[in-house]
Amino acid sequence: MKTQVCIIGAGPAGLLLGHLLRAEGVDCVVLERRSPDYVLSRIRAGVLENITVSLMERLGLDQRLKAEGLPHDGFNLADGERLIRIDIAELTGGQQVVVYGQTELTRDLMDAREERGLEVIYEAEETVLFDVESDAPYVPYTRDGTQHRVDCRFIVGCDGFHGPSRKAIPASVGMEYQREYPFGWLGILADVPPCNHELIYANHERGFALASMRSETRSRYYVDVPLTDKVEEWSDERLWDELAIRLGPEAAANITRGPALEKSIAPLRSFVFAPMRHGSLLLCGDSAHIVPPTGAKGLNLAASDVHYAAEALTGFFNKSDNDAIAAYSDTALARVWKSERFSWSLTKLMHRFPEDGPFERAMQQAELDYIASSRAAQTSIAENYVGLPV
Amino acid sequence: MKTQVCIIGAGPAGLLLGHLLRAEGVDCVVLERRSPDYVLSRIRAGVLENITVSLMERLGLDQRLKAEGLPHDGFNLADGERLIRIDIAELTGGQQVVVYGQTELTRDLMDAREERGLEVIYEAEETVLFDVESDAPYVPYTRDGTQHRVDCRFIVGCDGFHGPSRKAIPASVGMEYQREYPFGWLGILADVPPCNHELIYANHERGFALASMRSETRSRYYVDVPLTDKVEEWSDERLWDELAIRLGPEAAANITRGPALEKSIAPLRSFVFAPMRHGSLLLCGDSAHIVPPTGAKGLNLAASDVHYAAEALTGFFNKSDNDAIAAYSDTALARVWKSERFSWSLTKLMHRFPEDGPFERAMQQAELDYIASSRAAQTSIAENYVGLPV
Repeated sequence: MKTQVCIIGAGPAGLLLGHLLRAEGVDCVVLERRSPDYVLSRIRAGVLENITVSLMERLGLDQRLKAEGLPHDGFNLADGERLIRIDIAELTGGQQVVVYGQTELTRDLMDAREERGLEVIYEAEETVLFDVESDAPYVPYTRDGTQHRVDCRFIVGCDGFHGPSRKAIPASVGMEYQREYPFGWLGILADVPPCNHELIYANHERGFALASMRSETRSRYYVDVPLTDKVEEWSDERLWDELAIRLGPEAAANITRGPALEKSIAPLRSFVFAPMRHGSLLLCGDSAHIVPPTGAKGLNLAASDVHYAAEALTGFFNKSDNDAIAAYSDTALARVWKSERFSWSLTKLMHRFPEDGPFERAMQQAELDYIASSRAAQTSIAENYVGLPV
Repeated sequence: MKTQVCIIGAGPAGLLLGHLLRAEGVDCVVLERRSPDYVLSRIRAGVLENITVSLMERLGLDQRLKAEGLPHDGFNLADGERLIRIDIAELTGGQQVVVYGQTELTRDLMDAREERGLEVIYEAEETVLFDVESDAPYVPYTRDGTQHRVDCRFIVGCDGFHGPSRKAIPASVGMEYQREYPFGWLGILADVPPCNHELIYANHERGFALASMRSETRSRYYVDVPLTDKVEEWSDERLWDELAIRLGPEAAANITRGPALEKSIAPLRSFVFAPMRHGSLLLCGDSAHIVPPTGAKGLNLAASDVHYAAEALTGFFNKSDNDAIAAYSDTALARVWKSERFSWSLTKLMHRFPEDGPFERAMQQAELDYIASSRAAQTSIAENYVGLPV
């Protein structure tokens, strides 16, 4: 098969990019290792920034997002004693975030494949990237035991942290920046109403907690746990009890408990691979960078990469403009680094680190006190939370 | 001798407090271990916040400060490539800082002793604090080989980090919060014009540098060095060479070199002792807390402590109001913690830490990039730099 752009990975990044390219008349095909059901079974983020919402709007695929998504004007930081509300709408000239599960967004993009003529090949296994330094890269893969191959002008890696795309860039070319965190997030998804109409990030003396949601009837909660903990050690009751303590009495009074639809422990990592382009290969989203989930930047950062990649590729094919391709890595990384910084700093502010002593703990408290008292500090958090300009 | 308030230490904090109390008719005496000349020979900070300037104004001792001090509307962060100017006046509604050496401020306060009837006993040695938990504490000391004693209602410790006041509070009562830094500041004072009309804080790959000044003809520069370095290893030429590299080509072109009037290495420390009052003993300034010099908070934080202490003591003696004395520690600490936070975070942003890897270094760069692009981030820095509200 011959196409202009071969996209590896049919998660939200790959599907968004595929739709954006198709909308501009660029030929592409998306290769996905898993089945559609498997892709939809992955429980991920649920807070959309402007950039993500605006891409869905531009595609005309935002009907369900508009109907079912919950616009949020603010969120809360808790320090065990009080809620510090960050009024993002008031502080950013009316901007909002939208609570809408990544799974739902992926479903909307999947459902539009046929209508929009986006070809996605699921269960494409053993994908390998060849000749990415040339103008004629190609991607062999196996499906149902048969060998296939996509020939293309560009490959875009939307295949996540563990996918083959980043690994196709020689080690001598790239640099990995990485930080691991000494805890994981134990998450529970349950069909119960959320305890608060806005998110609450809590730094309690027992550790971090997050009260989040997917809808008005589906809640998502997290606590941080040592990486040595096993999910089996956390019964639903133990987890609800812990949430009630860490989120504080006000939130606890409104927690509705229910059985876990999903419960898992995810490690936290900061990771950036640079450059994000090598020859004819562009990386988007988790294939190039990971943020800790604090602040919900992961999906949104993938969306801004996709935005830049779509601009660069349509410029190349429709206007014979090579400049945006050449600039893609620098352009995308400028925003990536700022999101990495925000996610890292919010993670550091809201978690207890084993290596921290009383002074570092006091600095967390002082920062929360300062944030509570400073419009400038709140504005800085708010503008990062809704997403810095693209 | 009997008085209402015995102040230990005749640095700027002790003298400021003494004058403020005298202005309100409260009796006090200041005990100082050293001679006047020794006190004036200590080279310290040189950037005054609003709170410090306003106390000198209130005392009517601001003539020289107004005539010789240099009001600054901004300062600069440098990252090896560019200067990021923080326009503090524009960002804070016209506020400024004033460059005026701590030595000069101390001299002004010393010179006004006689006129204002402030008694300062210099070379008062072997000072000990007794009965601080009672309503009748007393302070024996030795002068010229003779034993003396001050009986008073309150003692205020303005005697710095190493003075006896803090040590008079039982270990069971207080909590020490501390962080040490893996480098010191090597400073040079020289009678040469400054390289830039505003301060430059630089984070260069070779390390930190600060271009500061005391006047239009006296410059103060710093670089950070490993704590194992000796000042003898740094000839003037070596230090000027290093400054020229770290401050970047633009600043380097304007550096005027000259012989060191003073050259020394100071360790950096964050330290807070809480509470800041125990019985009839109040602590002000360095006796209760130390900040790293990044951001020039040390003297200014002492001034805000002194402001709160003067309010509390005049309230007690002139209005029989005990509430402000009872609240002194909490009131002072609320501002102390925020200044500690700012000094710590600016220190972390502008220095290279041996334990940092490429990711942490990238986070410094990302934070500087974000600051350069965000009015909210610049406003947050500016409002801390001019001093948070008292």
